[in-house]
Amino acid sequence: MSDRYRLADRIVERIEELGEISETPGMLTRVCFSPEHRRAADLILGWMRDAGMAARMDEIGNAVGRYEGAQPGLPCLMLGSHYDTVRDAGKWDGPLGVITAIECVADLARRGLRLPLAIEVVGFADEEGVRFSSTLLGSSAIAGTFDKRLLDAKGRDGLTMREAVLAFGLEPDAIGRAARKRCGIHAYIELHIEQGPVLEEKDLPVGVVTAISGASRFRIELDGRAGHAGTVPMTLRRDALAGAADCIAAVERRCCGVAGLVGTVGQITAEPGATNVIPGRVSFSVDLRASEDQIRENTIARVLEDLREIAARRNLRLAIAKTHECGTVQCAVWLREQIAAAIKAGGHSVTELPSGAGHDGMAMADIADIGMIFVRCRDGVSHHPDEHTETADVEAAALTLLHFIENFKPHTEPRI
Amino acid sequence: MSDRYRLADRIVERIEELGEISETPGMLTRVCFSPEHRRAADLILGWMRDAGMAARMDEIGNAVGRYEGAQPGLPCLMLGSHYDTVRDAGKWDGPLGVITAIECVADLARRGLRLPLAIEVVGFADEEGVRFSSTLLGSSAIAGTFDKRLLDAKGRDGLTMREAVLAFGLEPDAIGRAARKRCGIHAYIELHIEQGPVLEEKDLPVGVVTAISGASRFRIELDGRAGHAGTVPMTLRRDALAGAADCIAAVERRCCGVAGLVGTVGQITAEPGATNVIPGRVSFSVDLRASEDQIRENTIARVLEDLREIAARRNLRLAIAKTHECGTVQCAVWLREQIAAAIKAGGHSVTELPSGAGHDGMAMADIADIGMIFVRCRDGVSHHPDEHTETADVEAAALTLLHFIENFKPHTEPRI
Repeated sequence: MSDRYRLADRIVERIEELGEISETPGMLTRVCFSPEHRRAADLILGWMRDAGMAARMDEIGNAVGRYEGAQPGLPCLMLGSHYDTVRDAGKWDGPLGVITAIECVADLARRGLRLPLAIEVVGFADEEGVRFSSTLLGSSAIAGTFDKRLLDAKGRDGLTMREAVLAFGLEPDAIGRAARKRCGIHAYIELHIEQGPVLEEKDLPVGVVTAISGASRFRIELDGRAGHAGTVPMTLRRDALAGAADCIAAVERRCCGVAGLVGTVGQITAEPGATNVIPGRVSFSVDLRASEDQIRENTIARVLEDLREIAARRNLRLAIAKTHECGTVQCAVWLREQIAAAIKAGGHSVTELPSGAGHDGMAMADIADIGMIFVRCRDGVSHHPDEHTETADVEAAALTLLHFIENFKPHTEPRI
Repeated sequence: MSDRYRLADRIVERIEELGEISETPGMLTRVCFSPEHRRAADLILGWMRDAGMAARMDEIGNAVGRYEGAQPGLPCLMLGSHYDTVRDAGKWDGPLGVITAIECVADLARRGLRLPLAIEVVGFADEEGVRFSSTLLGSSAIAGTFDKRLLDAKGRDGLTMREAVLAFGLEPDAIGRAARKRCGIHAYIELHIEQGPVLEEKDLPVGVVTAISGASRFRIELDGRAGHAGTVPMTLRRDALAGAADCIAAVERRCCGVAGLVGTVGQITAEPGATNVIPGRVSFSVDLRASEDQIRENTIARVLEDLREIAARRNLRLAIAKTHECGTVQCAVWLREQIAAAIKAGGHSVTELPSGAGHDGMAMADIADIGMIFVRCRDGVSHHPDEHTETADVEAAALTLLHFIENFKPHTEPRI
């Protein structure tokens, strides 16, 4: 047990060490194909080798380590997460999954344990999509769904992805070779901080993820009529902000009371934006997510119906633009059951929750059944320097993953 | 009648001519103590003299013209409005009242008509307060309520008002001498564009103002908790924007159905302001106006009670700061009656309405009973280059004011 607590300590030490690799002093930012990407990859590949794995950087810059099973060349259980970050990031989002997986393998290796399957650990090169505004680059390359047209996308520094990949020392036209075959992977498992408050609220260190919620985003514009705040009677107003307030209430109302459904208005601007002028135009965002696509689609229909009714009643012009949509990715029930068993074995109650945030598993689902383990993070804070996970929770997470690995039973149903 | 239509044409010509005097080519901006102030004053003083008035610039830069009555030195009926503008202004807000009054006097003079009272026309130097963020400078100087401490206020160009007044060629310490005595003024009458849609809605060219509404303004802050739009369940949110939406609805609800009461949320900011982040902090303005102080005060109490209830229910921290307050200024009933009679004499229906915008009459009420005539303006638009009044409405306004002047009966009750 004291050994295992040292396991958690080592994970935390490495989280700190990796968190030092940033393009900005005093602030963590690490984007793909940068010198920091290279330094971080070298560090992770070294840790993989120390853990007894064969390690290499693949064609898109993923750090890939392989721990052979009882015989070489067996299909693998793939564990992973990403090691790029958002700007001014926390240290835990991504690296916790990579480092914990490496330490679990190290624990097996220390004990000389070989399983009837290989274990691979992947640190994905880019999940956040900060540099090229396109997420899941690393996992989509492994899943074989990397879109080559992205190579022409330009980052903020003016370089295209193709130029950045070349400057990084990789061959853009070889990225397709990072793709893996479905038959070589039993399952993909990702351990990640929750980035939300549910586990904290339930006082649990870890939880089983049911699905990565699908999301739809909209940009809504309401046009009314600006006017003097003192001279236009209430009955003659076409106040775009009063209309937007009704819409915000409708989004909230339609999303309450349904498990796994959330709706958010995060951005709003009112023009002309003066204390003494009735807003003539308001623009706001709507973000709807649900762990089941049907629920999300029904909610979208109801919310848009509400918006149309509000705009008609208030004589406002309504413009609706869909800016993003992705469907729900389910975590496989057989993996959820094995994760739940591992959590129980650690003496914790099992709770299931959807992931409202996106993860590499979304891309990996194209090539493997996926499962996810969430780890409690302080105050549910993420994408922020205050992001934190207690060492005791790191321990619970590492032991859960280790128990899961050691007891992993591949899915027996035939694959189509 | 054709003569009188020429009266309206001349007013419109002069509106255009004065509207050319601007600090910015192609855009109307005219602030106090500027070269444009001087040029506009010279033009207006010339018009006053052409109309048979003795004209001078007073100690704060007002243009003051006097048309003596049957004997010299009689108390006056004072007519006026302002000739400064907001930035990127319309041509009508202020000048219409000054120029129409001058043309009415010119009409009397052409007919050789002398009344049993003097008529004074004042073009106020600063009503909008653009340069020193302090309104009603001209009228407060005449009312004897000019606050000398304002001389130390700095404008955007870095000059204090004292320096600006000196550079303009006036003596700051002499401003007190612009003050007039109550016993010398029978009443103050202002003709002004409505700056709102009520007369247009009622298809009337002119209306009687009942009062200049009092106004209270607040800055409201709601603090909740920012969070990931996907990972925080609806039940665990402290969404400051959802709370603000409830507050905006409450402001509107409390202000509907009461004549002369209006409430506006014109400014709003939500932080951090990202599509995928729950707003943790929202700041918004509330502007409440009513033609009766008691109604405004009752409404404030109810709205603030609503805001406190909403914040408590949603577990948001609420901060309320009052940023502005001024009481209602009533138009004297005896003047409203005489204005109504003049409107009727012109063949128009009489409608009464409050002024939700501020006017020089607010300051003049300290020294005289006040009355106001509103003139229809297109689409209710003001403080904008599109501000416009039809010539037919200018004619109706000029004839109303002329009829009022010719039939004016001073108040007979003893003054205290």
